[in-house]
Amino acid sequence: MTLKDNPKVFGCRLSRVIAAAAGLVLCAQALGQTDPLPSWNDGSAKQAIVNFVKMTTDMSSPRFVPQEERIATFDQDGTLWVEHPIYTQVLYCLDRVPVVVKEKPELANVEPFKTVLSGDREAIAKLTVEDLLKIVAATITGMSVEDYTTEIKKWLGTAKDSRWKRPYTELTYLPMIELLKYLRTNGYRTFIVTGGGQDFVRVYAEEVYGIPPEQVVGTSFGISYGYDKNGRPFLTREPKLLLNDDNAGKPEGIHLMIGRRPYIAFGNSTGDRQMLEYTKAGENERLAMLVLHDDAKREYAYGPAQGLQDTKVGTFTQALYDEAKQKDWIVISMQKDWKRIFAFEQ
Amino acid sequence: MTLKDNPKVFGCRLSRVIAAAAGLVLCAQALGQTDPLPSWNDGSAKQAIVNFVKMTTDMSSPRFVPQEERIATFDQDGTLWVEHPIYTQVLYCLDRVPVVVKEKPELANVEPFKTVLSGDREAIAKLTVEDLLKIVAATITGMSVEDYTTEIKKWLGTAKDSRWKRPYTELTYLPMIELLKYLRTNGYRTFIVTGGGQDFVRVYAEEVYGIPPEQVVGTSFGISYGYDKNGRPFLTREPKLLLNDDNAGKPEGIHLMIGRRPYIAFGNSTGDRQMLEYTKAGENERLAMLVLHDDAKREYAYGPAQGLQDTKVGTFTQALYDEAKQKDWIVISMQKDWKRIFAFEQ
Repeated sequence: MTLKDNPKVFGCRLSRVIAAAAGLVLCAQALGQTDPLPSWNDGSAKQAIVNFVKMTTDMSSPRFVPQEERIATFDQDGTLWVEHPIYTQVLYCLDRVPVVVKEKPELANVEPFKTVLSGDREAIAKLTVEDLLKIVAATITGMSVEDYTTEIKKWLGTAKDSRWKRPYTELTYLPMIELLKYLRTNGYRTFIVTGGGQDFVRVYAEEVYGIPPEQVVGTSFGISYGYDKNGRPFLTREPKLLLNDDNAGKPEGIHLMIGRRPYIAFGNSTGDRQMLEYTKAGENERLAMLVLHDDAKREYAYGPAQGLQDTKVGTFTQALYDEAKQKDWIVISMQKDWKRIFAFEQ
Repeated sequence: MTLKDNPKVFGCRLSRVIAAAAGLVLCAQALGQTDPLPSWNDGSAKQAIVNFVKMTTDMSSPRFVPQEERIATFDQDGTLWVEHPIYTQVLYCLDRVPVVVKEKPELANVEPFKTVLSGDREAIAKLTVEDLLKIVAATITGMSVEDYTTEIKKWLGTAKDSRWKRPYTELTYLPMIELLKYLRTNGYRTFIVTGGGQDFVRVYAEEVYGIPPEQVVGTSFGISYGYDKNGRPFLTREPKLLLNDDNAGKPEGIHLMIGRRPYIAFGNSTGDRQMLEYTKAGENERLAMLVLHDDAKREYAYGPAQGLQDTKVGTFTQALYDEAKQKDWIVISMQKDWKRIFAFEQ
């Protein structure tokens, strides 16, 4: 939008004269309506985004990027929504354990299901990756694609986060939702590239982020085609990992599912490192950004980069921070760069 | 477009009066300009397409499909371009054998490379699937993603089909190109779902079909992320089959890459059977169509359906034909339904 096109901005210019005399700041308020990123504080992060978008969409710019090549990829957990104290999808899997055990009672005395059923939070927190993979295999594979989607929808409609007492789909970051829209308005196609389950995220990505299923790249299991007793075909989720879409799996997944190198990539942890490296290694200028969770009051604070608390969920190491500084990836401080974090905040 | 919006059509109505008197058919000519499928003969196939699109895009229709769900999938070989006498990608692989042998001279006396190098067409035609897979592994894996793309572009720029003496990218079917555009104009997202190599088709799909890389689903090999000696990341094509996107692999690939059941699916051989079954098994009305190659004069004629010649390339069995008739899939007769097959025809 140019100034010419917008009567509100014209109105603003007139009001500036009045405001100057009256000591009011009507203009700033009016201008705020045209800011596509109102939940971002003015600062280097916001400026970098706006500059990059202007530079790559202005046909007279030497950095102009044709629309078909405008690809932006986003990690999900910790980048688009809250990932602490534990990934939402893991909570879903844990919540599903009693249902699975009801169907297969023999699992009740088998680890790790026994521990999950005990409800002992400390013991559950100590489960190993192998334990979690067993739980994943039992709770999100072996059913039809449709049944899986139905179960997730049902769960998302009732489950609530323990801190905010709100559905998980409300724990998305407003500045990032604004950013996704801003990029799409400027001809970028926005993709989620998540270590989380592709089919899990697809269930809500369109409604919550405006991102359709085919633009969700994530960890994927094998799918097998078969027929029910009436000859109706259906797809079954197999307990066979097809793509582990984390770390090196992210650029690999991007190539498999998108087939084009992103111009913009956003992440927040070591699992996003290779995606950002791959993005920046492309020809011409590219934009790579990392969200640093440094706001314990409004959300969470963890690193261990910059002396923040160490964590297993969404680790942002000092090495990643140093690589970012060295390679001109921009670190977003949640505390300083985000005016507002959630849409439900006043 | 409605009649009201188009002055040409209004002009036509006036000219009809004149034409009726003068014995001219100016009107048909003028109307032809507004037909989105001018290379299709009027008949049940064309009518089925137009009716389906109207029904699913008219908000007042009980069969209206919201734009985000409008997915159309197309097989490539034999559906969008010529596949006889042999798949284009196989020709590419065979042409690459001398280059590979130059790099690895020890292969010169090893089968199946020895046979390919002999140039003995009869012996080459007798190569088994296992032989071809060895050739595929040697010629299209083990290199970087960028090098593979560069080689294909180079080959497509010079290689020519033996019958028409034209680049392979000119051997696309004009009626299908019109159809792809017509569907996109009506809010459908068009995807290729091919048994051919995903990365092979991606090289030209955008220019030739207007289909971007992320909308090409095809047979895929593993990809691995690594760094060159300067620390620059790159992706290598691995000789590990990830998705065999043919037969049952087509609906499986559609779920993996698109995550939504198509409303429209086009194919031409037994390899497309499951894609069409899966499409038609969805709720509401869906459109499934098969191209029958029954035009030896203008293209090729093969089946063995309907007494046409049997073939190993793009087999259309009588069983598939019978399933189509039984399940209300529409068979397109290349001879009767297509007015013009190639753009280069007069």
